[in-house]
Parts: sequence; structure tokens; C-alpha cells
Amino acid sequence: MRRCVITRYSKQLTPINYSCAFSTFSQCRERLNVSQLLSSGAEAKDAEVYGWVRSVRRQKKIAFAAVGDGSTIESLQAVLKPEHTANLSTGTAVKLIGSWQPSVGSKQSHELQVHSVSVLGENDAEHNPIQPKYQTAEYLRTIPHLRPRIPLNALLLRIRSQVIASLTRFFDAQGFVQTHPPIITSSDCEGAGEVFTVSSHAHKETHADGEHLQTNDDHFFRIPKYLTVSSQLHLEALAQAVDKVWTLSPTFRAEKSDTPRHLSEFYMLEAEVCFTNDLDDVMQIVEQMLSAVASDLLRSRHGAELLGVRGSSIQSVDGNINKEVTAATLEQRWKGMAANGWPRITYADAIRLLQNAVADNKATFTYTPNHEDGLLAEHERYVAAEVGGGNTPVFVTHYPRAQKPFYMSPSLTTENGNATQDTVACFDLLIPDLCELVGGSLREYRLKELQEAMAAKGVAGSSLEWYQDLRKYGSVPHGGFGLGFDRLLCYLTGTSNVRDVVAFPRWYGRCDC
Amino acid sequence: MRRCVITRYSKQLTPINYSCAFSTFSQCRERLNVSQLLSSGAEAKDAEVYGWVRSVRRQKKIAFAAVGDGSTIESLQAVLKPEHTANLSTGTAVKLIGSWQPSVGSKQSHELQVHSVSVLGENDAEHNPIQPKYQTAEYLRTIPHLRPRIPLNALLLRIRSQVIASLTRFFDAQGFVQTHPPIITSSDCEGAGEVFTVSSHAHKETHADGEHLQTNDDHFFRIPKYLTVSSQLHLEALAQAVDKVWTLSPTFRAEKSDTPRHLSEFYMLEAEVCFTNDLDDVMQIVEQMLSAVASDLLRSRHGAELLGVRGSSIQSVDGNINKEVTAATLEQRWKGMAANGWPRITYADAIRLLQNAVADNKATFTYTPNHEDGLLAEHERYVAAEVGGGNTPVFVTHYPRAQKPFYMSPSLTTENGNATQDTVACFDLLIPDLCELVGGSLREYRLKELQEAMAAKGVAGSSLEWYQDLRKYGSVPHGGFGLGFDRLLCYLTGTSNVRDVVAFPRWYGRCDC
Repeated sequence: MRRCVITRYSKQLTPINYSCAFSTFSQCRERLNVSQLLSSGAEAKDAEVYGWVRSVRRQKKIAFAAVGDGSTIESLQAVLKPEHTANLSTGTAVKLIGSWQPSVGSKQSHELQVHSVSVLGENDAEHNPIQPKYQTAEYLRTIPHLRPRIPLNALLLRIRSQVIASLTRFFDAQGFVQTHPPIITSSDCEGAGEVFTVSSHAHKETHADGEHLQTNDDHFFRIPKYLTVSSQLHLEALAQAVDKVWTLSPTFRAEKSDTPRHLSEFYMLEAEVCFTNDLDDVMQIVEQMLSAVASDLLRSRHGAELLGVRGSSIQSVDGNINKEVTAATLEQRWKGMAANGWPRITYADAIRLLQNAVADNKATFTYTPNHEDGLLAEHERYVAAEVGGGNTPVFVTHYPRAQKPFYMSPSLTTENGNATQDTVACFDLLIPDLCELVGGSLREYRLKELQEAMAAKGVAGSSLEWYQDLRKYGSVPHGGFGLGFDRLLCYLTGTSNVRDVVAFPRWYGRCDC
Repeated sequence: MRRCVITRYSKQLTPINYSCAFSTFSQCRERLNVSQLLSSGAEAKDAEVYGWVRSVRRQKKIAFAAVGDGSTIESLQAVLKPEHTANLSTGTAVKLIGSWQPSVGSKQSHELQVHSVSVLGENDAEHNPIQPKYQTAEYLRTIPHLRPRIPLNALLLRIRSQVIASLTRFFDAQGFVQTHPPIITSSDCEGAGEVFTVSSHAHKETHADGEHLQTNDDHFFRIPKYLTVSSQLHLEALAQAVDKVWTLSPTFRAEKSDTPRHLSEFYMLEAEVCFTNDLDDVMQIVEQMLSAVASDLLRSRHGAELLGVRGSSIQSVDGNINKEVTAATLEQRWKGMAANGWPRITYADAIRLLQNAVADNKATFTYTPNHEDGLLAEHERYVAAEVGGGNTPVFVTHYPRAQKPFYMSPSLTTENGNATQDTVACFDLLIPDLCELVGGSLREYRLKELQEAMAAKGVAGSSLEWYQDLRKYGSVPHGGFGLGFDRLLCYLTGTSNVRDVVAFPRWYGRCDC
């Protein structure tokens, strides 16, 4: 029992004691988690292990439990007396004390010879929605609060965390300022339509048949407000204060799409840099950033664990696809992304490439590629595979102005005058299978030209007065990009559906938990 | 002029060139920003400087411009010919080329003897809402898109970024998994009332008198959904997968409060850890985390710059307060936070302390302190100052169950049996001036007791079925906390109003830009 004394008040007031009546256990105490224990070669007489039972195997005189605690995809082998396993099933939370020693079996180097088992949390094995057998991805999406307990899903959580840490390090080292642009906003970056609206003062009445809503909108913010669809415009304002900014923040689209690539709520990584009129600069940042992320993954324990899973037949959240994305494929992806010098091709050249492919009978498409209709998913896939060679991301640049939003800079005439007529200085980054991962451009930084572009695109100036202001008082040439963070995780982890890399996915009709 | 060639397609297709017709300039080119230039002792013949004019001073034969680029609060002194400064005013964006050499004046070690001035973006000096004079904090809040251009506000952006980086490093080193819990949610953690509701399919009609909204709620998510008021419940689910989790994510309250401490949209740092039944563990994480942040600040260049501002009379966003929070005060705060061993006092003892203070005529309060009514702001301030001694944060623990939400664990009987009857194992962290900064607790991890607590608090079980599930299948003792991130920045930077540390603040009636 520890005593905690109020440092300044121990004399005047009764000292207090925070300990519980029963034996306490503590995060802060020096103890190793399963990952640390497995990777430490040392033996230990009275090792304490806290975790969840992954499986139990009972023999006549001996029983084995595989135990994990979310620190690694590996399990620790606990050796127990069969009579001590009566209450143990897949999911039970336990505290084990035992001797950590070289294993008798050959499947692991060490095992825990258990002296003492305490059940911290019982498991209702019969009704547990997570069962130790194959369960479809569709089913698991109905129980997002329990799904991360599956070892592969826990690994996906750890990899998300690692990628965030890599990005934070990268931008910090490059002198970017991490910012928190607003979520509730009055602007709609890409034109109205697919936004969620925000209101207050809704009164809930609970009826027998569920929950009903009476909207009594009191205009909390005076005029209607929306959930942001992109932080770009706000980032442009912040960039003009500190030159280079980035954010990784939630973004919303009220699209009724039901695809493996779209969510209603998703994380977007966005960055803006000032003092450049060279699109290459923006692409270079994207390339270096993703290269850093992929390099970290290649070197990391989590990366190695994922390759181990993809190389085995361990139950996966995306069952069938797992067979397609092998460990070898994944490693090639990471290496392709870690390497520098990604190919770049103009939109005009990409269309020509597609048309040549059709003419030469090298490819067939449902929709004939042409300059006006843009690159459809099937076209992007072909371009990504052909130009990138399968594992290297590809920049497609200089799209027609008609296909892109008002805020993009026009391409300027090039030395040899080709391919830039009525195009904008922008790029999409295509990756194999997933198609567009990043979109970026130089921004129109001149007031008159911006106003003309807004008028041409039918964007009402009134709600974007503030954005025009940025061009009135010391505007500078600048550019930036946005990356679909959840899609990046799909690609890096070989997960085919974005609903399976997001802990609590929201899409049309679905907002569980 | 650089040539960019498509690496795989250079032979088949026309090589493309991304360069602009006029001279390009580039982020990626090897050039120093103002901060790097100022701290480099080296001379340079043709230094290029990109930035914004902060002030211009003209003499007969010579002129001086102070130029900044957001990388530091310091200005670079540019020496120009008076005839070259005709278009320069506070805010103009410029490109300067010149000789970086030891200064003739004594106020700076080096200065830029300018050969060439290009105006990148003109400044409409007359109408620029940011003027080179004192402007009130209230006024500046009406122009959040321009406000960060004020050097102190840019510094606040950089410090926010630095604190995020410190936290990311801290949690990464401690084995915490950074997560992205959902923003749109069906649960309301602390009971209904102050939530924003989310709907889709609003049709906008623009009238002459502004924008009107026709709500046509199609129940995008089938039943009404809200903006999260806390990620705690979702974090608890994720913690049971990977043990230790954290997030720094946006949180919303539809409160109609108009105080310097409240926003409708703010960032909350939340963390949860499993396998503990010791409240000390949770407090220790808070203490170590904040200590790491404050230590980083004490050592950093941004920290030193802020002390420089607070020690001078530089224009501040919170004009009057600036005089109160001096550099010395700030440094004491940081040191108090960086040091370990913060005092802890129970709620019961805190009430006794307050009552004794009244009895002994050491303090007067508008509201007489008593056990039932809880600690009001005036009481918290006294406790923080008395127990913490002015600069050390103070933990107040074991509040009455009646004052706290349903999910908190009851305090267990202590050795000497005092002070824990009908209290919960929770704490508030009080800091001088700002009062509550962090709230945390052990969570009720037992199903029956949780359901009883929900019933007693009138929390409908139906919308929290999933949360109860967490107690059915291997529940473990766990705890966590939430910290108001923007308030932390107020405290660390000596900013009296939370609206001035958030780039685009939203509060009742106000959502500018």
C-alpha cells in the first residue's frame, strides 16, 4: 500500500491514501507488456502479465492459453493447469503471474509457466459477438466497438498511429507549422451540395419506436453553418502568416455513395506553402513526405508484423482480399513509395497514352478516353499501372481548367509552348488500385484573376469575401495539396475497404456507436 | 529553367516542362528563411529573402524596411534606396536580393544591403484591416483570416505546433496509440442538451438579404446524429484493444456561454489506459505529459521568443493583459509545470481548507464553500493558489458522486477509512488563473454497477448498448482523462482569452470565415 501525502498540506490536513482496499495494480509500475516480454531474452521468476485470452487449448494434465494485450500481433504462450482454465475463453481478461522461461515446445522461445491466474473481466463466450472463427468484414462493421480486439484490427490501429507520428516528424523537420483549421465553417470549398449542416437546440423526445428529433433551429451562429469539406482555404490564410502549414483533421461529405473508397467522415492531410510559383515544389513535398512514411514502415516492427500477417492465413478483416494482397505485394508497395523520382505525366499526355493503348489494342475501356470527359477510374488505373509500373505512384499534371475548382492557378506557357493551353497548374497523384490519393495545385493568388475564375465557375463571392481579402494585402504565390489519409492507410496495409481502416466508420445510412 | 522529364515515358511522349515563362522561384531551392538567416553568422553576397514588410522608415538618402516571413518574431533589417520603397508598406509581400553583411547600426548584428526589390503582392495600405498600431483583441477577432499576420499571433501558431509535436513525441515514447475517434456520433457523453446536431441535404437559397436555409432532413444516418462532446467512450473501446490510447481531436458544445474560457469548437486531448485500478497512474501520466511539454517550451526558441515579447511592449492581441503576464510570470509557470511532484488534495480536504480560510478571515467568497454545492471558480482559484503556491498545478481528487458523470468508478475504502464515502475515483487538475485544465477518473468497468449508475443518473441505456458491451466480454479496470488543449495554450502563452489562441474561433453567434 502506497501513501500519497499532500506535499504542502500534510501537516495541516489528514494525509490521504489513494490505495484501494484490494491489491492495486498499476500501469506505472515497472512491468513489461507482451511485446516487450516476447522480445526480451531474459528469464523472470515472477513475471506479471495483463491481457486478454486469445485461445485456450486443454489437454489432460496441462493447458495452454495464448494471451495478447494489444502491444503486438504475437501471442504469449501461458502454460496452466487445466483446472485453472475453467473460466477462460477467447476474450477473457486475465492477470497471470508466473515464471518466464525457455519453452519446452519449439513454436516459441519462451513461455509463461503460470503460478496464479486472476480473471479481471469475465467473458460471456456464448454471446460474444467476436467469435474465434472467420467472420465477414460486413458483419464486423456492425460491431466497431469490439472489432479492434481482433489482432489484425489492433495492428491497423497501431499502424495508423505510427503513420501519424512519421508525418508529424517529417513536417516538424521541414519547418511546417501544424495547425487546427476550423471544422464548423461558413464556406464550402468546392461548391455547395454535399455538405452536412450544423444546428443547435434540437430537442430529443424518446418514443416507444425510437428517437425522434424536433428541430428548433435558433441559428446558433446567426446564419447556417456546415461541416468542413476541406481546410484548404483556411490553410491558405494561415500559410500567409507562417509560410508553411499542415493539418491532419476530420473532413465531411454528405455523399450518398456506397463504395469501398468513400466515407462521410474521414481524415484529410492538407498542406500549403508560400513563396513558390513552381508546381514541382508541391509535388516534391508530397513525394518526400510519402517516402518518409513508407521508409519508416519498412523499418518498423509494426510493418514487419503486417508482412507476417499478410504472409499467413491469420483471420483478416477483409477475408478474401487478403489472399490477393500478399506480403510480397505489400513490401513492393512500400519500396515503390520509399524510392524517389516518381514519374510525372501531363493530363494531355495521359489521354494520348490511353488513346494509343486503345488504338494499339493494348487495352479496352468501358468509356472511350477523350480530353473532355476526364480520367475515369478505369483510365486512372491504367495510367497508374502503365506509367508507374505497378508500385510507383504517378503524378498526372496540368488538367483542363474546366475540370478543376476555381482556386487553381492557370498553367503558364512553357518553353516549348505545348500542353498547357487552358490548363491549370495542378496534379493528381495516382497509386495502383486505389487511383487518386493526393490532389494539389498552385493557387490563384491574383485578385482580379481569382474573381474572374469565381464568376466563371459560378462561385458566389459574398461568402468568400475573406478569401479574396487574402489577395489584397501582400498576396504571395503559393500552392498546396490534400491527401486522403484513410485511403493512404488502405494502400499501405493492403486493406481493400476504407471502412476497415477507420475505427468507427460513418457512411450513408450508417453511424454505429 | 529546369526540365522535368517523365521518367518512363520520355522516349514515347513529348518531354514536358513545368517551368513558368517568367523566372521561377521555389520553396525547395536552397535558401534560408529569416530565422535561419538571422541566426547564421555567415555573410552572403546574393542572399534572397522572401517575406512581408513589417515597417518602413525613410530618410533622405537611405531607407530601412523590417521584413518577416513568419519563421520568427524577429525582423530582418533591409537597407534600401528611398526611391525603391515607394510601393512598400506594412503588409507588402516582397522578394529582396542583396548582400547579407554586418550591420552599420548597433541594433542588429547583420543587415541586408538590398540590390533588387520585387513586389510579389501589393498591399492596399489604406484599407488593410491590420494597421501598424494598437488594435483591440475584440476587433482583431473579427478578422481571423488576417490576424495571424501579426507577429505575436504567428508565434502563437508556431507554439501550438510545437506543443502538438511535444505531445506526439511523449505519447509515442510511452507506447500510447494515437487514434481518430469519430466526430459525428450517436452518443452524448455527459447527458443531452448542449450538442450540435448534424443533418444533410440542406438546400441553400440566396436572397438579396443574405443566405437562408431550407432544412430538408432526409435522415442521412437514419436517426439524428450529433457532434461529439467527448471522445472518451469511444477511446475506452479502443483502449480495450491496444491498452493505451490518446487523441487530440475537435470537440463541440452548443453552449450559449460568452466567457474567455469557452468555445463552441475546441480541441481536446484525451487518453485512456487499461490494467489499472490506481488513480495515481492516471494523474502520473498527466503530470509527466505536461512536464514534458513545459520542459520542451523552456528549452525552445519559440519559448525564448515569447518571453522576449512578454518582456517588451510589442503589440499584443490581448493588450491590457500583456502587462500582467510578464516574462518572469510565464517562465515561473513553465518551471512549475516542468517540475514533478504536484500536490494532491481530496475534495473533502479542499472544502475544509476553504471553510478554514473563511473562519480564519484569510479569504472571502461570494458563495460560502460547502460540500454539496461543489467548487466554484472562485474556490478553485483559491485552492490552486494556496495548495499550488502560485505556479504548481494541483490535483483535487475524490469528488462526491453526485457531482460527477455516471461512468466514474466509486472510490474504494481507504486504509484509514476517511474521505471516500460516496465519492468517485476522479480528479480535476487546477492551474492558477484558469482553474480546471484536466478532468480524469477511473472508469466503472463492472457491468452491473455501470447499469445502476446509469439508472441513478437517468442515462438511457438504449443509446449506450455498445458501451455496456465493453463490460461483458473481458472488461478490465481502466482510467483516463481529458484536457482542454486551447486552455493549456492560453496558460502556457499568457493569453487571457481562449479566442485568441485559436485561429478561427467559434462561439455563440460567431463563426467568422
